[in-house]
Amino acid sequence: MTKKRIFLNAFDMHCAGHQSPGVWTHPEDQSDRFNDLSYWTDLAKMLEAGGFDGIFFADVLGTYDVYNGSREAAVTNGVQVPVNDPLLAISAMAHVTEHLGFGVTYSVTYEHPYILARRLSTLDHLTNGRIGWNIVTSYLDSAAVNLGFSGQLHHDQRYEIAEEYLEVCYKLWEGSWEEDAVVKDKKSKVYTDHSKVHNIRHEGKHFTVPGPHLCEPSPQRTPVLYQAGASPRGRQFASKHAECVFTAGPTIEIVKDYVKDLRSRVSTQGRNEEDVRVFGILTPIVGKTEDEAQAKYETIRKHVSYEGSLALLSGWTGIDLSQYSPDESLKHVTSNAMQSAVDIFTKADPNRTWTLRELAYHVGVGGRGPVIVGTPQQVADEMERWVNEADVDGFNIPYTMAPGSFQDFTELVVPELRKRGLLPPQDARYETYRENLFGEGKTRLPSSHPSHTWKELKRRTVT
Amino acid sequence: MTKKRIFLNAFDMHCAGHQSPGVWTHPEDQSDRFNDLSYWTDLAKMLEAGGFDGIFFADVLGTYDVYNGSREAAVTNGVQVPVNDPLLAISAMAHVTEHLGFGVTYSVTYEHPYILARRLSTLDHLTNGRIGWNIVTSYLDSAAVNLGFSGQLHHDQRYEIAEEYLEVCYKLWEGSWEEDAVVKDKKSKVYTDHSKVHNIRHEGKHFTVPGPHLCEPSPQRTPVLYQAGASPRGRQFASKHAECVFTAGPTIEIVKDYVKDLRSRVSTQGRNEEDVRVFGILTPIVGKTEDEAQAKYETIRKHVSYEGSLALLSGWTGIDLSQYSPDESLKHVTSNAMQSAVDIFTKADPNRTWTLRELAYHVGVGGRGPVIVGTPQQVADEMERWVNEADVDGFNIPYTMAPGSFQDFTELVVPELRKRGLLPPQDARYETYRENLFGEGKTRLPSSHPSHTWKELKRRTVT
Repeated sequence: MTKKRIFLNAFDMHCAGHQSPGVWTHPEDQSDRFNDLSYWTDLAKMLEAGGFDGIFFADVLGTYDVYNGSREAAVTNGVQVPVNDPLLAISAMAHVTEHLGFGVTYSVTYEHPYILARRLSTLDHLTNGRIGWNIVTSYLDSAAVNLGFSGQLHHDQRYEIAEEYLEVCYKLWEGSWEEDAVVKDKKSKVYTDHSKVHNIRHEGKHFTVPGPHLCEPSPQRTPVLYQAGASPRGRQFASKHAECVFTAGPTIEIVKDYVKDLRSRVSTQGRNEEDVRVFGILTPIVGKTEDEAQAKYETIRKHVSYEGSLALLSGWTGIDLSQYSPDESLKHVTSNAMQSAVDIFTKADPNRTWTLRELAYHVGVGGRGPVIVGTPQQVADEMERWVNEADVDGFNIPYTMAPGSFQDFTELVVPELRKRGLLPPQDARYETYRENLFGEGKTRLPSSHPSHTWKELKRRTVT
Repeated sequence: MTKKRIFLNAFDMHCAGHQSPGVWTHPEDQSDRFNDLSYWTDLAKMLEAGGFDGIFFADVLGTYDVYNGSREAAVTNGVQVPVNDPLLAISAMAHVTEHLGFGVTYSVTYEHPYILARRLSTLDHLTNGRIGWNIVTSYLDSAAVNLGFSGQLHHDQRYEIAEEYLEVCYKLWEGSWEEDAVVKDKKSKVYTDHSKVHNIRHEGKHFTVPGPHLCEPSPQRTPVLYQAGASPRGRQFASKHAECVFTAGPTIEIVKDYVKDLRSRVSTQGRNEEDVRVFGILTPIVGKTEDEAQAKYETIRKHVSYEGSLALLSGWTGIDLSQYSPDESLKHVTSNAMQSAVDIFTKADPNRTWTLRELAYHVGVGGRGPVIVGTPQQVADEMERWVNEADVDGFNIPYTMAPGSFQDFTELVVPELRKRGLLPPQDARYETYRENLFGEGKTRLPSSHPSHTWKELKRRTVT
């Protein structure tokens, strides 16, 4: 059997303790150095040398203030606040690496597509084609109110805007400049053949953008498109647009169903299944021996902030978890959102009684998905099982401690995965992010992708 | 006499031939490599080693389409199109340097202050306090229409919005987080003292921003503030807010009057004159001998694009210059904007008959201001004269060819300026941009700056 190659992104954010509230207090954790550029350049070098395909940045534009109706717990424990803009360290990280991809979360709700399109084209140029864009439609309420909205837009309305937003971007990225528009012929003194630069003449419900795009075609033109739609509408959106889908489910059973549904939707869209990579999530706490791994886990768990975890969980679910007592079983919680959050973890281990405390500590060790405590072999076994049974193509790997978790992973797990033929050798890397995900020569979106409609812009518009 | 120290910014843009249309065709010009990150990191290293204080990035968000009512001339000649986002290469340039400052042009008209404030705080952190912001209120009509406006806002309305925009930024940068809010005490497990993080509760005419800011205080908090207001309203704005004022006048007489007026306005605002640096513009074409310099000038002039220059000039003045014949004297042009543009150059050399062609070629060799063709001594003489007579503190130095012009300047002119005591020695540099401009320890805005009103935010708001 030819084994599937596993794709690996480090999962990170420009804040301390991304998904492990409180663990910044661990003596070895350095994630609070996120304001320091050398922290990011060192990390980029380590990830590239260590076999990662990319680094995937989450982002929020607000604070977690659902718990206790206040941001106090989040601020006190440094839970995703303070938080910096994820785009700005990328050129430095690209400068010290050659192949590492950069997936960045950016919302379509709060920035104009004409500006974001230029921003991502610029980065795709500067990184020589290593940019991915995680399309999100919303952030926290606390973000929306700071940007002039009274609260978040309705879910379906956000996706409606996102559809039009992408249409504008596709037109700018794929249609506005023909491939050979830029000539730079010093003899004929022609920089650009102006007849090959087209207005996009977009006039939609939400945006009016005559064009043209301001940047010439970048190596990938459209960045690698990530999406993480979970709702039916979100899955529909992802199956139409996304090249990489990120799903943070905690059990193989749950993720397997999701992936099956998603791949079927992709086919229905007329796209090839192999043009979409699905990334699960898996938090490894790895040691050379089981005892070493378990000891690491215990120490990390001691540094988890209970309140910080609840601040995070309350923000995710929209439920103020301060109303529940720590040791109460969560089986009979009535709120839909909370029940579904509990259900997910309950299913992960049906024999365990989930209390609020247990849930908080599980989340606190990076456990938005499964937490695998064990030897390199055990972690590799589990990853292999997820790939084979849940049909994921790879993982976003969160850290519990940074950069230590990533260092452990590159030093201990990557060699094991290579030995099993699940990761390519270090020198089998291409230049662009899309090629590293889909294969040599596949720098641009395939023709079955909806963006291709706008390749023909020149024939449909008068410039 | 203690001579004034001269401040130096390289004047650049993320496009080819920033202010020298057509000169990208010169065999030695490399400015068309602007998509390539190593072009920017090499330039940053050269500028820092060569004695520059900073690099100042212009920007536009549209194309120059006034000339002939079309963007054809601009696109064909690569006149500031294609053009990338200036913020994104900065972290890489900061990674390879230690002291070089980065001034970036960003408009207050098209991006939300809550987002821009985070973006600039992030950069100030990552560069260790080396960010400046050139506040502009508008771009071209061709930009406005792509961002959902039917055209540019009225001049005074733009400044009204800018005033409120800055108020929001000051509140976020200076008032939201107290200096010692971030504790990061691993023992007490307190990341941030939440009682020292304040909502800004801004409710204005154009923006509603409850806050708090998302980033902790960066080295400079507020980036070094640049502005280039020329109109009475613009000067008023600059005298109130700007720490560095950029004026692109072509003669000492014109700039002298401007600087005198500006400094008087600064005093009226209750600010200290020495808290504002004025940057003129001066394009040096330098050779070891006069003949060498003159030969360089002649060669560069041959590569200027006449139509490209007119595209640029038409965009700046808003007048379609295709209506004038190339060799007609411009003395009797009736349009106000054009007459004032011509007047400016006429005053620069009253014995010269300015035709459209001559004006185009003057602009084409980087001549938005004076063009000094000569030896290092002659260029230094002229700079000294500007400082003494026009009372400027420094210059934004455009290139005619990049990076060659900057290399000539650092190799030939900088040593001459140092010999005269007009530039500090290479090792007399501080860490932050503001200290390099205003002196050791002056990392933050002085207390006479209007932003200081918002330092007291905590006493005025309930968090």
